[in-house]
Amino acid sequence: MSKRLLSVLILIAMILNASLPTTSAEQRPTAGERVDLVVLGGSIVTMNARRQLIEDGGIAVKGGRIVAIGSHADIAGRYAGRQIVDASGKTIIPGLINGHTHIPMVLFRGLADDLDLQDWLTKYIFPAEAKNVTEDFVRAGTRLGLAEMIRGGTTTYCDMYYFEDAIADETAKAGVRGVLGETVIDFPVADNKTNAEAMAYVERFVKKWQGHDLIVPAIAPHAPYTVSEEHLKAARAFSDRTGSPIVTHISETKREVDDSIKARGASPIEYLARIGFLNDRVIAAHVVWPTPNELSILKRLGVGVIHNPQSNMKLAAGVAPVPQMLRDGLLVGLGTDGAASNNDLSMWEEMDTAAKLHKVFSGDPKIISAQEALELATIRGAQALHLEKEIGSIETGKRADLVLVERSELNQIPSYNIYSDLVYASKASGVQTVIINGRIVMQDRRLLTLDEAAIRASARIFRERILKSLSSSPSAN
Amino acid sequence: MSKRLLSVLILIAMILNASLPTTSAEQRPTAGERVDLVVLGGSIVTMNARRQLIEDGGIAVKGGRIVAIGSHADIAGRYAGRQIVDASGKTIIPGLINGHTHIPMVLFRGLADDLDLQDWLTKYIFPAEAKNVTEDFVRAGTRLGLAEMIRGGTTTYCDMYYFEDAIADETAKAGVRGVLGETVIDFPVADNKTNAEAMAYVERFVKKWQGHDLIVPAIAPHAPYTVSEEHLKAARAFSDRTGSPIVTHISETKREVDDSIKARGASPIEYLARIGFLNDRVIAAHVVWPTPNELSILKRLGVGVIHNPQSNMKLAAGVAPVPQMLRDGLLVGLGTDGAASNNDLSMWEEMDTAAKLHKVFSGDPKIISAQEALELATIRGAQALHLEKEIGSIETGKRADLVLVERSELNQIPSYNIYSDLVYASKASGVQTVIINGRIVMQDRRLLTLDEAAIRASARIFRERILKSLSSSPSAN
Repeated sequence: MSKRLLSVLILIAMILNASLPTTSAEQRPTAGERVDLVVLGGSIVTMNARRQLIEDGGIAVKGGRIVAIGSHADIAGRYAGRQIVDASGKTIIPGLINGHTHIPMVLFRGLADDLDLQDWLTKYIFPAEAKNVTEDFVRAGTRLGLAEMIRGGTTTYCDMYYFEDAIADETAKAGVRGVLGETVIDFPVADNKTNAEAMAYVERFVKKWQGHDLIVPAIAPHAPYTVSEEHLKAARAFSDRTGSPIVTHISETKREVDDSIKARGASPIEYLARIGFLNDRVIAAHVVWPTPNELSILKRLGVGVIHNPQSNMKLAAGVAPVPQMLRDGLLVGLGTDGAASNNDLSMWEEMDTAAKLHKVFSGDPKIISAQEALELATIRGAQALHLEKEIGSIETGKRADLVLVERSELNQIPSYNIYSDLVYASKASGVQTVIINGRIVMQDRRLLTLDEAAIRASARIFRERILKSLSSSPSAN
Repeated sequence: MSKRLLSVLILIAMILNASLPTTSAEQRPTAGERVDLVVLGGSIVTMNARRQLIEDGGIAVKGGRIVAIGSHADIAGRYAGRQIVDASGKTIIPGLINGHTHIPMVLFRGLADDLDLQDWLTKYIFPAEAKNVTEDFVRAGTRLGLAEMIRGGTTTYCDMYYFEDAIADETAKAGVRGVLGETVIDFPVADNKTNAEAMAYVERFVKKWQGHDLIVPAIAPHAPYTVSEEHLKAARAFSDRTGSPIVTHISETKREVDDSIKARGASPIEYLARIGFLNDRVIAAHVVWPTPNELSILKRLGVGVIHNPQSNMKLAAGVAPVPQMLRDGLLVGLGTDGAASNNDLSMWEEMDTAAKLHKVFSGDPKIISAQEALELATIRGAQALHLEKEIGSIETGKRADLVLVERSELNQIPSYNIYSDLVYASKASGVQTVIINGRIVMQDRRLLTLDEAAIRASARIFRERILKSLSSSPSAN
């Protein structure tokens, strides 16, 4: 038999195999409370207040929430799951939380790197966006980003972009959780030409999605230097009226801080506090250059901060004082930023980088332990997104956002400490199965809610369009 | 048919399939010069002096060396390969070069993290080594490290450890290239109790392996603060007599430099130059704290420097002045250091980290471009190991160390710039096929020269022994 013929037969058999139900062999009804899903076996890293670890554990899920956690035997005995996920030999962690990104920018991944920030933005990113961002572009980029995030065990992400209603639609369809902010900015952009249009869009957007199981719609005034005081106040008023979160960028670069002092006599956070913009519904990305006084403002007002180490490094923005923030008790999460300044969406690399960057920057190798780095991407990320009641740890009552990670890849063995293994040795490629809101969205590295082939084909098409759009411009300026 | 039965049938068919020859379907003899292997299709990133890229290329390999490079059609027309590797849709890069590691320390991966350097060494690493390092330990750790490195596309590594003859044996059997240094250090260690024993071991070791196709045996005096002046001079004399390289650690920490000035009135590199130790056979790991004068000493004497960013960050050693070294024309490569301070052996992460660390540390996002980062892990790595005539780029006459990388993983697409793709988006998990000295050691992610199941089983056994050895000690001191 030729190798080719045999390969074809194998392929047919595998397709047949894949179409059979994915639950384990235990199909017979068992005694016990009926639930939607049970996860049995594996080592559970709960990230609860006691940082409890459960070896050979079990989790019961009903209505998208965790209803019980215990030993394998205990859960298997008490609950009958419509679906059973076998987690033996795996590590189960809370779904990772990417606290800051611009998801459709995956389509600009690698378009321009290693440039001064202003050149990067004005010669490449802004022109590329101006010529290419449409609803179709946003949908295609979102699907690619969602696929990459699911593969890497990210179950919740916080976004800021355009056509956010389309992003919410794709996100909900894929079964992913998102805090999604529609951009408000003081110049004409792809989906809204004026502030009035943008505020009307946000109004409809928030009304449509509020209360959704997966989507938290938000208003996203871009930054204090791109949105006027009047419009910032209006955004805050909108948030007060509707309860929606506010997603924004604050103090990413030293220049931004210097400009703020020159223009308004106050650094960005002091200015925003002065105009009554900040509160415990705000999610602030970057905060690389806060003063000590500004840190206490953020703490006092309960602002969530998202630290983006790889982006801050790649754009040479600086090193945010995260160890100090943690000592001061601020709410701090972790994010990748857009793929054009990373260039991946891997929270595994962000955790590893955060632990290492602050060690070398502070000169202290004890700073940001592996456990603390994992906290940033789970429970602390949830706190920074003001969703700590819903996600960030494996606890009864919280949403069933669970990620099963391989434990025996060559780069992970031998393993002595599960946090060290997860942060310093594991990679996105080790993620096997992802459950969001109790729904299996990836099983044994097979995406169940997104069509990878179509996503690849789509990325190719948009790549061609983007290249064409940039080559046809009279100059790169 | 039940899912289980179908799975078993598929498994049998796949085993059968795997046992069939792995060459492409083109088995009929073609006209053309007979060679051992041709690689056809794919995008070749040569890293030659012109940094040439060849789309849809071809490479002919004979006697472990590259005999021709050209277009797909050209090479397919002129050469008949005993083996044919189909690289279409892949990127072909020179094998990555890990310029500094302690390979068996993979068995200590995650044993202790997030500690002060002295505590880490004296309470965990040294006791663990003292109780566990035997030839068997070294062989098991080497096999695990080799498997992880091959999977990540590393084809050459530079090592410093004990029982280096056993490491060389395992490395040669696995078909990997290594510059392997037997440690010389002024206190009794696992394989040699006195300097005389160590020098005798090195004499036998170098004599045995010199001239081998894959192994370059070296002498590795640990560091200027652990080896006396007399013994350093003897190591240099040995290198002069035999031509073997010298692998050592220099100026990893500020404390080391301060201590050197106190003890000898000179910083480490000035001291080593003064005693006539340095030359163009030396490979110096770290060099985190050189003075400007010391940089010109290293340049003048042709010393190879290996930069280990992730280790330096994790241990808070500091940030080596690599951009300055590159501007000054020093020979600089990249390394992971031992897995206990990384904790993986991925050169992909080292490249990405090097590019990002120096951007943020210098405040300049143009520093260390993607192309320069790839240079550090290929051609510059070869220069730093004094092997630039043999490896580091895809050029005729050089060794056939070639790595095929996937280009359409979700985290890599769309791709606009091949260097950006490789450094900022690709991961070790994207490596598909690895050829070293013209021999395929991994094909389509299947290791051909190492038994992964046995490696895993062995890692488990040694993990148990290591844990037992540490718990039985009277104190952790």
